[in-house]
Amino acid sequence: MTDRFSKTPEPPYYAVIFTNQLSDDDAGYAEMGEAMYTLALAQPGCLGVESTRDATGLGITVSYWDSEDSIKAWKAEAKHLVAQKQGIERWYSHYELRVAKVERAYSGPEGRSLKRSTQNLRHSFGANAAQHMSVARVLPLSDVSG
Amino acid sequence: MTDRFSKTPEPPYYAVIFTNQLSDDDAGYAEMGEAMYTLALAQPGCLGVESTRDATGLGITVSYWDSEDSIKAWKAEAKHLVAQKQGIERWYSHYELRVAKVERAYSGPEGRSLKRSTQNLRHSFGANAAQHMSVARVLPLSDVSG
Repeated sequence: MTDRFSKTPEPPYYAVIFTNQLSDDDAGYAEMGEAMYTLALAQPGCLGVESTRDATGLGITVSYWDSEDSIKAWKAEAKHLVAQKQGIERWYSHYELRVAKVERAYSGPEGRSLKRSTQNLRHSFGANAAQHMSVARVLPLSDVSG
Repeated sequence: MTDRFSKTPEPPYYAVIFTNQLSDDDAGYAEMGEAMYTLALAQPGCLGVESTRDATGLGITVSYWDSEDSIKAWKAEAKHLVAQKQGIERWYSHYELRVAKVERAYSGPEGRSLKRSTQNLRHSFGANAAQHMSVARVLPLSDVSG
């Protein structure tokens, strides 16, 4: 159940937090949103995109980037400019956009050690991965709020 | 339509980005989530909370804080510790938590000047607010992605 989570590297990296409310005039939004999601993931320096929206139309999309330059390049991407224009003119009744530098990150509920062990697995399929996992299971409840 | 948006001050400040997938065992989650939302907003240094979740149970909650110390205090708050424990043991099948420093922020779709004019209005009800607004309306589509 982790397909919609971004497998980001160790910090630091950048996050663009885009909180937005869809207006009633959302014709064409779904297709464009899907296209932009795919396009963003294909951009140089994009580390992942996490996105969700409730039934009232309130959405939060967080995209992760390796650098400020990658964010700027994405902002200026031609198809994305078209989408931004439609978003401003029609789709969003309001939005807040924040650019932030991620300083630390944890995964769960297995605990913060799991992330390291997953990365170890990915890189080396190391024999001590199971040991990491069991360490993770006895970690205290320390990871939910930073 | 801005009740669910956080009226954050000018950066810098901190964001805790909590992306989470609810498990099937979500009994009691709704009440606890609501209680934690209210409790977080009442914490010293909390600047706001934005939260949404889709029908598949994928949620993103971003809380905003004035400092790292405020985040640490919230992490250690007694009722919050109880919630974290239940989250880890039952409610979340997976989560990613990232602590980030917000470096710049924009509002829309009116454009980045609106945020300043809104703050001016709040503080002074200044006579030049209308002028700020009209300036905001002719800004180019520059605010959607950073």
